Parts: sequence; structure tokens; C-alpha cells
Amino acid sequence: MSSFDLSVLLFLQLAFILGVCRVTALVFRRLGQSQVVSEMIAGVLMGPSLMGWLAPAWSTYLFPAESKPILFAISQLGLVLYMFLIGVEFDLDLIKSRLRSAASVSLAGIVVPFALGALLAYYLLGESALFSARTTLLQAMLFMGAAMSITAFPMLARIIFEQGLSKTSLGTLALAAGSIDDAAAWCVLAVVLASFQSRPELAFYAIGGGLLFGLFALQFLRRWLRPLGNMVEARGEISQGTLVFVLLLVMLGAWFTDFIQIYAVFGAFIMGIAMPRGKFAAELHRIVYPLTTAFLLPVFFVYSGLNTHIGLLNTPYLWFLACVVLLAATLGKGVACYAAARWHGESHREAMAVGTLMNARGLMELIILNIGLQRGIIEAGLFAIMVMMAIITTLMATPVFERLYGGTATARTRQEG
Amino acid sequence: MSSFDLSVLLFLQLAFILGVCRVTALVFRRLGQSQVVSEMIAGVLMGPSLMGWLAPAWSTYLFPAESKPILFAISQLGLVLYMFLIGVEFDLDLIKSRLRSAASVSLAGIVVPFALGALLAYYLLGESALFSARTTLLQAMLFMGAAMSITAFPMLARIIFEQGLSKTSLGTLALAAGSIDDAAAWCVLAVVLASFQSRPELAFYAIGGGLLFGLFALQFLRRWLRPLGNMVEARGEISQGTLVFVLLLVMLGAWFTDFIQIYAVFGAFIMGIAMPRGKFAAELHRIVYPLTTAFLLPVFFVYSGLNTHIGLLNTPYLWFLACVVLLAATLGKGVACYAAARWHGESHREAMAVGTLMNARGLMELIILNIGLQRGIIEAGLFAIMVMMAIITTLMATPVFERLYGGTATARTRQEG
Repeated sequence: MSSFDLSVLLFLQLAFILGVCRVTALVFRRLGQSQVVSEMIAGVLMGPSLMGWLAPAWSTYLFPAESKPILFAISQLGLVLYMFLIGVEFDLDLIKSRLRSAASVSLAGIVVPFALGALLAYYLLGESALFSARTTLLQAMLFMGAAMSITAFPMLARIIFEQGLSKTSLGTLALAAGSIDDAAAWCVLAVVLASFQSRPELAFYAIGGGLLFGLFALQFLRRWLRPLGNMVEARGEISQGTLVFVLLLVMLGAWFTDFIQIYAVFGAFIMGIAMPRGKFAAELHRIVYPLTTAFLLPVFFVYSGLNTHIGLLNTPYLWFLACVVLLAATLGKGVACYAAARWHGESHREAMAVGTLMNARGLMELIILNIGLQRGIIEAGLFAIMVMMAIITTLMATPVFERLYGGTATARTRQEG
Repeated sequence: MSSFDLSVLLFLQLAFILGVCRVTALVFRRLGQSQVVSEMIAGVLMGPSLMGWLAPAWSTYLFPAESKPILFAISQLGLVLYMFLIGVEFDLDLIKSRLRSAASVSLAGIVVPFALGALLAYYLLGESALFSARTTLLQAMLFMGAAMSITAFPMLARIIFEQGLSKTSLGTLALAAGSIDDAAAWCVLAVVLASFQSRPELAFYAIGGGLLFGLFALQFLRRWLRPLGNMVEARGEISQGTLVFVLLLVMLGAWFTDFIQIYAVFGAFIMGIAMPRGKFAAELHRIVYPLTTAFLLPVFFVYSGLNTHIGLLNTPYLWFLACVVLLAATLGKGVACYAAARWHGESHREAMAVGTLMNARGLMELIILNIGLQRGIIEAGLFAIMVMMAIITTLMATPVFERLYGGTATARTRQEG
């Protein structure tokens, strides 16, 4: 297909994605699920698990392999802009007041699931449906540890935003703990990938480069941008020149963190934190938010769903393993985070909320799993098991949340529609 | 390169494009050129004519062939959203009052350049540097006619917007005449392409389908959307659900007009006209405009520039031909439109402005030329000649405009920065 044919198809794909997401959102809202979950499920429905099975010809026509790089690129663009906004809303001062809670929650959220994941890998390494023959024990343990300790950071961010908790202390706590956990998991993944390629220096670039980038953005860039913030405060609006400059910084940040093999979302998120607050942040939100969430972001959730094939879970033994993994994941992450939050004097309600949010793996998990599958670390069976785990832990999040924060949540979701 | 590698590169490409466009805009504003011209030139500078020549390694690294489909898709997305906004701003009532002027200007703007183009093709068909051996005389005449009568519709729209003329009677007149001309030229192109593939039914689909689409959108859809407009008027803002629905319509319109081989911009433009006015239109503009023009649209102008190679004009004879083509293009389009506007009692100033705007070929010309080159209708020599003509007629537009509407234009440009 030529570039032109692909662009024609893109319009049809986007129209279809927007339409299906809209319908799914209407259905799932009645079931008490948030929009982000409905988009994730819409993606799975459009993938091989349903549409590819019921209407294979249409499925092949609409999503040919050649069009995948374009959809992926747009999905990343949407994700990066979205994570940037989450960073813009992120309140560093609020987190300072609860630093000890955040540190404990994120530590518990890494150490416990990592240990359980590594333990599972230790017992399961021999299974040919799960790990490839060339994966060493250490690699398997590190990968499973990382995969278990991942949090659906973008999803967590969106649920927090959808429920109207972005600027609350709870929301900030969960965001901080989630982002630390995810960054740590991506660093572990960098180590695994580096050892897979026998190039240890790659791990060093990822971790060292990530730290340097964070330091630069939060210490220097943030200060340098302050006059720009004052200018916007005085003028009352962001000029096009300033907007272009900000977008340039976001793209550079996303590129750099991708380049050093962490992940673009962190670069964008940190750039968001580095932006001036007040009018500047409000204007950025006003300009970037609607088109990003209504138009670009659904592509991310749909793209990930397109690669998910639930039919791969095809033996009772694999289903049994799926249950074990789900249990280990929820105990390791959800329960451990709940316990850590309680330990630091958070209320039962807040601790439950944090545990549930941290437990949702969402589609960040799918990304790490796709990398594992592509690089030949894990096999299709384990992939399908982990996908199940990711979907179920994510589905659990909103109903639990609805219970804890019923009124707010429903009001907010209605407003979003 | 994997999808992932391409998406990493995309962030770098976008950062680079935004940076170069910003710098070029600062330079060209001092030279009295509008932002859209500076973006077009930024594109040429990043292409083989300068960057590819001075820094070939960097150029190949930054814009590998594999990444072109992604850039093209994003450029089309930006263009479509932009043309949709132009449609939203388009005032059908205003045009009704000047229907006879618009009809005459667009007729003159088609017939005269078409005749001159066809005449040139008649004399030049034998030249091997210009037309391929399999192009028949009729095809050559039709193609050159269409290529000469094209107007830079998106560019014209942007200049009109940048100069703050979108809702004036002059702006509407130029937009109407430009859109009619372009639609006609694309229909002629559809005929040429259909005859090239020996499939006459394609021409029928293009023209018949285009008419049906326009009728449907402007007669039915526009009426059906009216209640939505009243709802937004009452509420004061567009809900996310409505926004998604509107974007879905835009994508469908773009896809359909591309699919029947007219061009996505018309579908998007007509969808824009079909939208309810008032608060609804204002909200759409507020939401879609900033990110589209600051982020997506520059990619369109840059992408086209990437494919332009001025070095192909390498003999005195080709330069002589370039001058003849330029003269014929300006006489045929600019002067004819000026005369038609005067004939209908427009003032000298307005007629000059309309003639200049209609004369600018911009990057719409590049698209039609790229199609001609890809399908083997024209050769690289004629391609380069026509590109020169497109760039010069476009460069002429803003300075002439500055002279006629000096105060407004400068004020507007300053505000844009």
C-alpha cells in the first residue's frame, strides 16, 4: 500500500475507532466502568479475540499489518501528550507533605510483587509454553518481577482524573507511588534487555540517563521556564510561539527517554512537572486536553487491544496458572500497597483506593509483555496469562472505586460523557 | 525499523520540525512573509534541496524512507482538521450575497489557466524531460490544464485566516472561488487518472460521489445537526461525547472523499460547512485550532517540502520553460481572476487581493504534481518546473497582500507569534 492509501485508510480506522469506543463507553458506563476501561475493552473487541474471529475479512481490510506502524505512532503521540498533561496537573508540593507514605507505598508496590514474580519464574522456567529456551533463570526472574510490579501509570492517571481526584492528596499519592514503581520496573526491564543483548552498558544509559534527565528538567528547566510562566500570567493566554516551544520540549523529552530505552511517557510526564503552574498550566490543559483525550488517546488503548488474543489461553492448566498469577499479582501489589498505606496512618478508605489503583496493570503491562514476546523472552502462553491478569486487575479498579467514592465518581463520569 | 523505533524517531522528527519552523517563522516574519509561507520554505530547507545536500547523513537518519508513511498520515490528519475548521468558519450566507462574483471569478480561474495549460502541453508533449512516453496528448493536456488551474486552497484559507479576513466578504469570496476551482481541478485529475488506468467508471464515481456527498452534507446533515447546535448554545460548551461524534463525522467525510478519489480536504471542508454555527462553531474552533495549527499542520507543509528537489532544474532551457510556465500561470489565473472580479464591480483593491490569492498554488499543486509523477504522467523535469511556479506564485501572495492590507496583516501576524 502507498503512503496515500494508508492515509485514506487511517481516516476510516479513526472513524471506526471513535464510533466503537463511543458505543462501548455508553454500554460500560451503565455497568459502572470508567471510560478508560471501556476503551481498553473496545480495543480487545476490535482485535483478534472478537472482530478478527467474527468478521476476518473486514478485520484484515480495516487493520492490515502495514497500517500498524502508523496507528502505533499516533497512539504514542496521544499517550505522550496525555502523560504530559498529567505531569502538568501533578502537584509536587502536595506530594512533599506525604512523602513518607508515597515512598512506603511505592517500595511495597515494587518489592513484594517483584519477589512473588521472581518466585513464580523460578518455578515455571522449565515450561515450554511460558519461557523461551534461551531465557536464563536470572532473566526470567527479573522479567517476571518487572512485569508483576508494573502499574498502569497512564491508566491510573486517567482514572484519577476521571474521578476528579487529580489535585487531591490521595490522587497525588497514588500518582507519585505509581510513577516511581513504573520507572523502577522500566529500569529493571532495561537491565533484562541489556543482558539479553549482552550489552550491559545499555542498562547504565537507561538508568543514568533517566536520572540525569529528571535532574535537568526538575532542577534547571523548571527554573528557566518560570519567566515564561509569569509572562503568560500577565497576558492571560499562551501565544502560539510559546505553545510550539512547549510542544517541542515535550517531544524532546519523549524522544530522549525512549532513546535511552526507558519509555516516552516518563519524559513527557517529567516535562509536564517542569512546566510553570497557575495560568500557564491551566492554558496548556485547556488547549491540549480535549483533542488528546477525544481523538488521539483512544488509539493507544485500541492499538494495544488489537494485539491481544485471549484465545491463546486454551488448556485448563494455563487457566489454573492464570489464577495463580492473578492471585500473586493482587496479593503482591494491591494488598501490599494497602498495608503500606495503612502503616503510615492513611484511612482504610484511602488505603483501599491506593491499593486498588496501584493494582491495576492496564495496558502498560501489555507494552512490557509485547516487548518480552518480541524479544523472545516469554512465549505466547505466558503472554496470554499475563494479559488476563492485566485486564482483570484493571476491571477491578473502577467498581471498587465507585464503592469508595461513589458520588463523585458517577457525577464525574456523567460530566465526561 | 520496528513500529517502536519509528515512534521513537517520530518524536525527534516532530521536535526538529517544530524547532526549524519556529526559527524560519521568526526570520520570514521580518521579511514580511506569513507563517504558512515560512513553513513551506522550512520544509524545502529540510528536504534534499538544502539539508539533504549539506548534511546527508543526518538527513537520512532523521527522515528515513520507512518513516514517510507515518509523517504523511499525520500531515493529512492535520490538514483535514484544519480544512474542517475553515469550513466551520465559512459563511454560506455571506457568499450568497456575492454569488455572481464568486461564480465568475472561479469560472475565469478555471477556464483561462486550463486553456493555457492545455496549450502548453500541446507544444511540449514531445519533450522527454517533461512527459513520459506513454502519456497521450489528451491526457497531457488535461493534466497540465488541471495543474495550472489548481489553487492553494488550504494555503489561501490560512492566509485569509492569518490576515483576519475569514469572516469578511472578500475572504468568503476568495474561499468560495478557490474551493470551486480546486474541486473542479480534482475532478479533471480524476478523469486523467481514470483514463490512465483505462477505467472510465472511476471518473464517474469521483464526480457523482462528490456531488452526492456535498448534497447530503449540506442539505440533510446540516439540518439534522441543528438540534445539537441548540443544545450546545444552551449549555455553553461542547461535551466530550459531542466532540467525538463531530470528529467521527470529519473522519468519515475525509475518508469518503479520498475513497472516491477526490481528496480528503473537501470532505473535511464540507463537513465543516455542515456544522451548526454560533456557540457550536466557536467551541469547535477553540478546541481544535491551537493543537492543529501549532502541532499537526506544520507536518503537512514540511512533508511536501521534503519531496521537492529544486536541483532538478539544471539546464538553461528548463529555466526558460519555467519562466514561460510561470508567466502563463500568473496570466491565466491571477490576471483572469482579477479581471473577472473587476467585471462584477469589485474594487481594484479587492480584485487584486482575490487575483493574488487565487494565483498562489502552494502545496496543493505539489500534491497533484506528486500524483502525476508517481503515476508516470509527467517526468522529473516538468515536476521541478511546476514546483518552481508553485513556490513563486505563493511567495508573491503575502507581500502583495501586505501592500493592500498592510495594517491589518502586520497586526495579525504579530498576534499570531
